[in-house]
Amino acid sequence: MTSDPSGASLGEFERIRHFFAPLAGPGGLGLLDDAALIDCRAGQRLVVTADAIVAGVHYLPNDPPDLVARKLLRVNLSDLAAMGARPLHYLLTTALPASLGPDWIAEFARGLAEDQRRFGIDLLGGDSVATSGPAVLSLTAIGEVAAGMGIRRSGARAGDLVWVSGTIGDAFLGLAVLRGAYPQLAPEHRAELIRRFQVPNPRIDLGCRLAGIARAMIDISDGLIADLEHICETSRVAAVIELASLPLSTAARVIVDREPDTRIALATGGDDYELLFTAPAGSSKEIDDLSSVVGLPITPIGRIEPGEGVRLVNARGQPTSVDEPGYRHF
Amino acid sequence: MTSDPSGASLGEFERIRHFFAPLAGPGGLGLLDDAALIDCRAGQRLVVTADAIVAGVHYLPNDPPDLVARKLLRVNLSDLAAMGARPLHYLLTTALPASLGPDWIAEFARGLAEDQRRFGIDLLGGDSVATSGPAVLSLTAIGEVAAGMGIRRSGARAGDLVWVSGTIGDAFLGLAVLRGAYPQLAPEHRAELIRRFQVPNPRIDLGCRLAGIARAMIDISDGLIADLEHICETSRVAAVIELASLPLSTAARVIVDREPDTRIALATGGDDYELLFTAPAGSSKEIDDLSSVVGLPITPIGRIEPGEGVRLVNARGQPTSVDEPGYRHF
Repeated sequence: MTSDPSGASLGEFERIRHFFAPLAGPGGLGLLDDAALIDCRAGQRLVVTADAIVAGVHYLPNDPPDLVARKLLRVNLSDLAAMGARPLHYLLTTALPASLGPDWIAEFARGLAEDQRRFGIDLLGGDSVATSGPAVLSLTAIGEVAAGMGIRRSGARAGDLVWVSGTIGDAFLGLAVLRGAYPQLAPEHRAELIRRFQVPNPRIDLGCRLAGIARAMIDISDGLIADLEHICETSRVAAVIELASLPLSTAARVIVDREPDTRIALATGGDDYELLFTAPAGSSKEIDDLSSVVGLPITPIGRIEPGEGVRLVNARGQPTSVDEPGYRHF
Repeated sequence: MTSDPSGASLGEFERIRHFFAPLAGPGGLGLLDDAALIDCRAGQRLVVTADAIVAGVHYLPNDPPDLVARKLLRVNLSDLAAMGARPLHYLLTTALPASLGPDWIAEFARGLAEDQRRFGIDLLGGDSVATSGPAVLSLTAIGEVAAGMGIRRSGARAGDLVWVSGTIGDAFLGLAVLRGAYPQLAPEHRAELIRRFQVPNPRIDLGCRLAGIARAMIDISDGLIADLEHICETSRVAAVIELASLPLSTAARVIVDREPDTRIALATGGDDYELLFTAPAGSSKEIDDLSSVVGLPITPIGRIEPGEGVRLVNARGQPTSVDEPGYRHF
């Protein structure tokens, strides 16, 4: 780059060679080429997604770098899971301030290596640039899905039940804990909520197994209500959600028992990276069985109706006010 | 995102819907899904690359936004060209400061639309986030190449000639002009150099046609010498370049005639996005013919030898000192 003299360039090459080349798979050509090659298997389609995270916006600047790397990777893998796809490869672009030196990058790469092994994926390429602002980390994930089996957002139909995997709101509470909230909460609950914020679990196995069962699916990043709105809008349907049916972790339940209004914040907080999907009512047994197979709760929380928008009802079926604390998306 | 309340999220959706959804191709699913689908054609391999640009580093913050978009796209297409690949799709991640409002984004999207048409590609997806720092624009480009026809950096052999497309150093001089250098230069020469800095021309047609001819290829982004070093290192060979043979534009020649030392700066300045490749000496006629077909000079500038590193020689074949002004890469 003309305006960026050679020192920075050499730094980039060294960084790539030292920290990132060991992460490259065979298609990545050792990160020594202009681009990487991907084989396509017969009967499969490739699935691609890109998500970025920014220091101070999507993670706290002092978060451990290995956890930042794993979160970056996992939020992208979660998008693949929401299509029912199996992850294969990724490309990584880092824009880092000078304050993040080799130690930070080494820890960041260690986090990537750990999750690569866990998810059976490899690095294909990317870029490494400098910024005078906060770190901007951008990742493109590539997966595959059998042709015709990809699960879109647009397939929800009136009469479908709405399901969600795992528990909701833990990441929202984890960030609050990191910021000093809930000091009386038991240490193990605090740790669990923080872990849920820092290292989401992309539901890849579940996503793949929902092909042929789920009619519409999304992963929860913006918040359960907002993401269900995306399904409704794309599918041109409405949804009714029973607030009391939201699956909560033990830690979240302790907080909600003390402050019942928190429940609606959990449905709007975001960053859950659970799968939210709709399926015909006749699939309930199959989904319950799947829950046992993948070892994860899958909970029916409402239903799809004709119309538009998402309505919340309380345990007695009465509408819940949309201007309650924490409810910020409308 | 938990820590980024709904205002920004809604802003993101509106931005995507308004400015970027019109750029999406059929695989991009209207940018309304978690990920995009790509079909793979039989006998083809997909080629992927990612490059980022940062305001104030890779472009000037006041550069016209449509030109910034086109540069971002083109530097990535240039990487595909260097593999001999044909571009198909791209994903875009923007991290923008609040100071860049809808007008900037509209112009940026207009630039993308213009170049999409020119290069026959479409947008598959991406992300849009906020940063408190300078804009960081990251793009992943996806192309295809016939299986077995991808051109790598590692194929150079002793005895090959080294060739370069177009002219060298114009972008380096264009940035200097933008910064106030060469005030006596004729306005049309100034404009041409600036254009070369702001809107590079990825040599896609030439890259595809060099499959089966070029043994090793790279696009010049770091500078002709530095990028030839990459070929030499990956191919485990040396290169000798005759400095006087570097192809110069009329504008660059005017400057070099006045300041001969500038020539070596042009070979190291970078941002040319020309193709640099090696080919057996017996291919020279074929390459000359190709030059006529694509309407672009293709110039032999040296040869590959056993050994390592890049040596420069003057018109009399004598070594040129490596500590001349502008020569910063070693």
